Order: sequence, then C-alpha cells, then structure tokens
Amino acid sequence: MSSTTAPASGQPRPQPAAMYAATGLDVWTMMNQAAASVGAVNLGQGYMSFPPKDFIKRAAQEALADGVQHQYAPPRGRPRLLDEVAARFSGLLGRPIDPASEISVHAGANEALLSAFCAFLEPGKGQEAVLIEPAFDQYTPNVAMAGGTPVYVPLRVRTSKDPAREVISSDDWKLDPAELEAAITSKTRILVLNTPHNPVGKVFTRAELEEIGAIATRHNLLVIADEVYEHLTYGAEHVSIATLPGMWERTITVGSAGKLLGVTGWRVGWAVGPRELIQPTLAAHTRIVFTANTPLQEGVASALSAARDNGFVAVQRAEYQARRNRLMAIFDDVGLPYVAPDGAYYILANAGAVRIPDDYEFPPFIEERGRNFKLAYYFTKEFGVSGIPPAEFYSPAHKDIAGDYIRFAFCKTDEGLDECAQRLQKLKAHLQEARAVPF
Amino acid sequence: MSSTTAPASGQPRPQPAAMYAATGLDVWTMMNQAAASVGAVNLGQGYMSFPPKDFIKRAAQEALADGVQHQYAPPRGRPRLLDEVAARFSGLLGRPIDPASEISVHAGANEALLSAFCAFLEPGKGQEAVLIEPAFDQYTPNVAMAGGTPVYVPLRVRTSKDPAREVISSDDWKLDPAELEAAITSKTRILVLNTPHNPVGKVFTRAELEEIGAIATRHNLLVIADEVYEHLTYGAEHVSIATLPGMWERTITVGSAGKLLGVTGWRVGWAVGPRELIQPTLAAHTRIVFTANTPLQEGVASALSAARDNGFVAVQRAEYQARRNRLMAIFDDVGLPYVAPDGAYYILANAGAVRIPDDYEFPPFIEERGRNFKLAYYFTKEFGVSGIPPAEFYSPAHKDIAGDYIRFAFCKTDEGLDECAQRLQKLKAHLQEARAVPF
Ligand SMILES: Cc1ncc(COP(=O)(O)O)c(C=O)c1O
Ligand SMILES: Cc1ncc(COP(=O)(O)O)c(C=O)c1O
Repeated sequence: MSSTTAPASGQPRPQPAAMYAATGLDVWTMMNQAAASVGAVNLGQGYMSFPPKDFIKRAAQEALADGVQHQYAPPRGRPRLLDEVAARFSGLLGRPIDPASEISVHAGANEALLSAFCAFLEPGKGQEAVLIEPAFDQYTPNVAMAGGTPVYVPLRVRTSKDPAREVISSDDWKLDPAELEAAITSKTRILVLNTPHNPVGKVFTRAELEEIGAIATRHNLLVIADEVYEHLTYGAEHVSIATLPGMWERTITVGSAGKLLGVTGWRVGWAVGPRELIQPTLAAHTRIVFTANTPLQEGVASALSAARDNGFVAVQRAEYQARRNRLMAIFDDVGLPYVAPDGAYYILANAGAVRIPDDYEFPPFIEERGRNFKLAYYFTKEFGVSGIPPAEFYSPAHKDIAGDYIRFAFCKTDEGLDECAQRLQKLKAHLQEARAVPF
Repeated sequence: MSSTTAPASGQPRPQPAAMYAATGLDVWTMMNQAAASVGAVNLGQGYMSFPPKDFIKRAAQEALADGVQHQYAPPRGRPRLLDEVAARFSGLLGRPIDPASEISVHAGANEALLSAFCAFLEPGKGQEAVLIEPAFDQYTPNVAMAGGTPVYVPLRVRTSKDPAREVISSDDWKLDPAELEAAITSKTRILVLNTPHNPVGKVFTRAELEEIGAIATRHNLLVIADEVYEHLTYGAEHVSIATLPGMWERTITVGSAGKLLGVTGWRVGWAVGPRELIQPTLAAHTRIVFTANTPLQEGVASALSAARDNGFVAVQRAEYQARRNRLMAIFDDVGLPYVAPDGAYYILANAGAVRIPDDYEFPPFIEERGRNFKLAYYFTKEFGVSGIPPAEFYSPAHKDIAGDYIRFAFCKTDEGLDECAQRLQKLKAHLQEARAVPF
C-alpha cells in the first residue's frame, strides 16, 4: 500500500460503490499489455490502425477554423449534424426523419445506449433488459447504472460442421425465439439487438428480425437497436428492425460517427426514433454529458455531407471487405478455423485445436479469468497475434460457449495483417502437430 | 398528439422512467427562446460569445492534421494531456501529481462530476450528498442518477445592507457551519463544494474551507471540489480545499478545459485526487462514455503547454476582470444593485425593485415556475437583456432566497455588454419611478 491509502492518522476514508471498487485490469488493458510485452500484432481493440480519409480530417479542421463553433452545442445536437443524420436515416429507415424531434446526438454510441437505458428503466423496480450474447461489454454495466437488471439469451451455434475444424458462417449463430421468449418476464422492459453483430459478424435476416419484433411487440418491449456497423456488410443485407411494420414506434436505433467515418476517438454518435422515445433519451443525455463536443459534430456534419457525393461509404465497405478477405485467407492458409462474418469488422477464430502445455505458466490476472482468457493470452505470447477473449462478452452461465474463440479485429492496415500472416506460420506447425494426434 | 403517440392499433408503448418523462422546456431553452423572441441581449447561458485565442484553435487543428490521433484514447486520457494536467495541478495543489494514477480525463467537468457521484454513492441505500445552494443545476439530477439523495444547505446573505438597494459582495453569502453539520446524517457520503461559485461568484476563504474541511473529516465525507472557475478570481485568492491538511485524501477536485481555455464545446474536463478516489471515478467514466474525444484532448494538451509560456491564464483573467467591471458599471449606471463577484463569470443582479404590473400576462410555462422565473422573463421582455432565474439552482424549500435575483453571464463580447448598456436605459427610468414610490 502506498502512503496515501493508510496514513499514520488512520482516518477512515470514503468508500467506493461496489460496482466501481474493483482495482483489477480491464480486458482491453490486459490484452494490450500482453500484446505489447511480446511485440504482438495487436488485433484486439476495434479501432482503426489506418488514418481517416483526408476529407474527413479536413472537415473537422475547417470547423475549428471558425471562431464560433467552440461553445456548447444544443443538447440535442448541432442543427447541421441533425440534418445530416436525418438525411442518412430517412434513407436507411425508409421514412422521413424529423431532425428537430426524432434524433439526439451523443458522445459516442456508448453514451446513446446509456441514455436510452436510463430513460427507459425505472431504478429500484427490478426492471429487466434482455441482452443477446455475446453482448458488447458495455451493455451490462450500462443497464446496471440505469438501475436495471440484465438478463441473457445466448446465440447458439447451429451447424452440422465442427467449428474447431471447419470454417462456419456468422449466420450459423442463431437466436432461438423460444429461448428469447422464455427469458421475458413481467419485469422486462428492453431488448437490445445488435446487428451487424460484434463480435460474431452476424447480420440478422429479415425473417429473424420479424420473429424478434413480434416478441418485442407481444411483451411491449422497447428495442434498442445497436446498428453502429450498419455500413459494413459483406454480401448480406442489413435490415433495421425499425423498418418492420409496427416497430418504428418501439425502437431506438443507435449509430456511431466513430464507426461510420473511421474516427472512433471523435466521440459522436446518435439515437434515432419517434419523438416519444427520443425525448426521454435526450433528457438523460443532457444530464449525463450535457452535450457532445461541438467542433467534431460540425466535422461529422461536413464529412457526412461530402460523403453523400463522393461515394465514401461504398468505397469504405469495399476496403473493409478486402481486409476481411485478407484475414480470412491468412487463417485459411494456416488452418485456423473461424466464423466468416457477414458484417462488422471482427472475426471469431476458433482456437479449440491449440494445445496449451499442462505446465504453462499464466500471470495471476489471466489465471483467475479462466480458460478463454488463457487461450487468448497463450495465443498472443506464442504466436505473436493478439485478440480479445469473447468470454468478456458473456455472463458467467454462458461463458463456455465462447471457450474456444478469440476475437480479431480487421480494421487494421494491410501491413499489420500481412505481419500477422508471418507470425501465424508458427501456429500452422502447431496446428498440424496438434491435429496429427487423434482425438 | 401526433400520429406516432397514439396509433389506431392502440398498442401499448414503452414508458419512460419518471425522472426523464417530463416534456416541459428546460430553463436554458426557455430563456433562450424568450431572449430570441424579443431580440434580447442574451447573458443567460455561460458560454463565451467571443472566439478562442488563435493558439488554442491552432492546437486542435494541428492535432487533427495527424493521421493517428483520431481513435479511442485510453479511458484515463491521452498521456500528453495527463502530463499537462499534472503540471498545472502540481502547481495549484502544491504537491506532485502522478499523471498515471491521480488524474482522469472526462467528457467535460459535468461528466467528471457524474462519474464521481456514481463511484461513491451506493445505489438503493439512501446515501446522501450535501449540496450547497445555489447549486449548479446538474448536481441534483447527477446525484439522483447515481442512486443517491441530495440534501440542501443554502448560502445565507449576511449583511447589514439592503441587497435590493445596494451593491453587496459575493463574500456576504455565507455558509453557516452549524447548518451544514445539522444536515449531515449517518447516510451522508459526499459534500459538493463549488469555489469560485456559480452563480454567486463567491470565492471561499481559507478560514471557511477549514471549517468545511473539519466537518467533512469528522463525518468521513468525500469532498467533490468543483473548481471549474479556479482561474477566474478578481482580487480574492482561490484556495483548493484539497491543499488543506488531511484533505487531499478525501477530495476529488474537478476542472474543465472548456472553462479554462474558453472552449465550452470541446467537452474535456478532469478529476484530480488520490489514486483510491480516482480509480473508481475512472471506472465509472469508462462505463459512462468510455473515453473523452481524442483530437480535442490533444488540442487541450498543446494549448496548456503553450499557455505555460505565453502567460495566457493571466491575460485571460485580466480580460474577464475588465468584462466584470464593465457589466458592474452598467448596472451602477442604471441603479440596478447586484452581488459583486470575486470569481467565476456571473453577476447576480437584484431586481427586487422591478415592479411587474398585476395584469402582466406570462406564458403558461413561465407562470407555473413561479415568481423568480416571472421576474427573469419580464426583465427579458421589457428591458431586452436576458439572464437565468437562479431559482433553478435551488430546491423547492429554499427557492425564495433567490426570488429577487437574475443571473447574468459576462463571458461576452464588449459589443454585447455595450448593447446591454443601451437596453438598460429603459430599466433606469423604471427603477427611478419604482423607487419614487415609498415602501
Ligand atoms: C456493438 C457496439 N456498440 C457500440 C459501440 C460503441 O460505439 P462508440 O465508439 O460510438 O461509443 C461499439 C464499439 O466498439 C460496439 O462494438
Ligand atoms: C459550477 C459548474 N460546474 C461544472 C460545469 C460544467 O463544466 P463543463 O462544461 O466542463 O462540463 C459548469 C458549467 O457551467 C459549472 O458552472
């Protein structure tokens, strides 16, 4: 203990709330440190290792050149940005979106999600939000902060293939509607739906969404549709659940300029929905951060405006598809099976065939987190490519579903991915050996 | 009702949480609209109507020119910014601040405050936070969001002068230590202390802080020291309560780049304190917004670095002092008494002598908010200068203390303030007439 924790005087000290008292490492820091310690190629966290396009950087610089765009924005958002988001979503959702009442701008999609949870969960009533696993790791604490209780329904792998030996599709991960409905109680208020899905890459089909929508309607649930990867699909069609009949009225669709423009650090996101759902979301947002930063809101507005003319979104999609194909080819080459993603920018690799020696030593912070963390750590150390253990995206009861997988992000430079190909030659030998030993 | 609120199908709809269900106007929007409707000079909201210095704008533009400073920052903050905040606070607090453990960077001071409340209030236990009134309007909802209960202790005006007829000092607003201590129960966990104070302009003296610190220590309270205006004092000395003996260990000091650099829209703030207090605050922050925006963190870091050499903070203080003096002279000229502020950038004017005709008509959203709102509204409409009713900064029990006051912000251009002088000539005549009628 340092001298500040227990001074000679022995005065009692303010105690933190249980939820924030843990002093351990979070998964991102943990894996970033492991990666750095062996100089691994870091395909962990989902941020771009390539620069944004020049027109995007310029858009923000021009906003800053102005003398007046440095002060508080209206909590709802800068009018130009509201207009641009309205334009994009009027297209995506196939209905005219009113910028003055049907959109709120947030400090990232994350803060949009938290705002929506706060707005629609009454604290202290044991109200529940259903999360589909694997679930983006902020959902659970965000539901708890809003005074709600998360309830988990996992996607199930439904295929006749052996995922530890063969490539499967993100579409093989299925939500069982009966299992979903069984999880709903009289206390359920919210269903969170992430499509395209992080980390699976699943793009929910219209038929799947219809089943989910029917259940949400039957139980009067708010659907929070986390569609931050709406612009990144590879063949599959992205369908917004808000476009299904009757669903607009009960859906808040969340998006992210960080993901859409490849600038995760700008912290600009949005929520789109009917006035009755956006008004409380905006009220919560106003109390959480008051308003999102002004210069980058203006930058996003200008960039979205330019993107409508220069075809940026289509170009970007093709670039990500090439990155995805490159990483899949690398995995194919070394014989590492994976879940081929239809959307987003992650690949779940199946490392079930990797053999960890019985006497391999793990640092305590990995040892205590269980098998999936050990696998990700071993992979980083031995093969020099670092990913994220998807167990982090599961509640304790369902962690085993992710046991064999490691999530790799492919929003990375070609050089980074090629370096990966080099590193994984060592894995190739390892897998050949491991597989030579019959099961 | 619009068609989306009650569709023909009559399906039940998701219901918002009580705290965010109100659809009424917030005070800022309300007064901004009133100001706009009559073309009033708007001295309401506390943002600068003048541009930031060129070196500050340039700092952010240069950060954006870079290819790599567009992605997620570490949740704690960009290393260069942590170093700059450490440098400034090592000076302010008179002790070496460790950038790696004693600072967290936030999406504005607002989000730093919310993070600290979340980190140190255990929801559902009826834990209390003491707020000194008038209290910045985000404290109450932020305490509630963290699951705590606000308890209010008002500053009391202690002077032999008549504040409706004479200028008094912000130092005439006193916190009664006995009243403070009487408000503390076994459930109290936090005391929020704002110095320099918005809206009073009071700069708490060392002697006052010692009394407050002794009470906080006696009851093992966390002190959240909101010092976003630490750089703006006019003669009085700003003392950080964290510098008093024994107080570092129980104080989180909150600051704002928006206020320090005159760029309220950048949404960068910070919390400074011992590791044991910052770690949970950072953990909450990571869940609330994940991280503050990267380019403007870099911009703030460069600007702070430049400011250490170019004397910016002293120059800015002199500029604000001139603005304060200009507005005080305008009020003096027309005979409007006020509270002369020792710090921050607001003046509470006492409009107690303004006579509102009995049959004056107010819009319903003003009528229902009571006397202080009516006064601010009448003042806007009739005299063309708009401020904020400080009743908004009080709990219902203490609203009357603010009844006669209107808050005017002087972080405005000279032209704006001069325009004010013109407008208020009408007030001059009104006050002379009103005062001719004996009480
Ligand atoms: C599914 C999902 N939702 C939300 C977010 C957060 O987006 P933002 O960076 O805009 O807060 C992410 C970021 O990784 C994500 O993967
Ligand atoms: C007393 C006080 N605290 C905090 C804030 C919020 O500062 P920021 O804009 O950095 O969130 C303000 C802004 O007006 C304030 O007056």
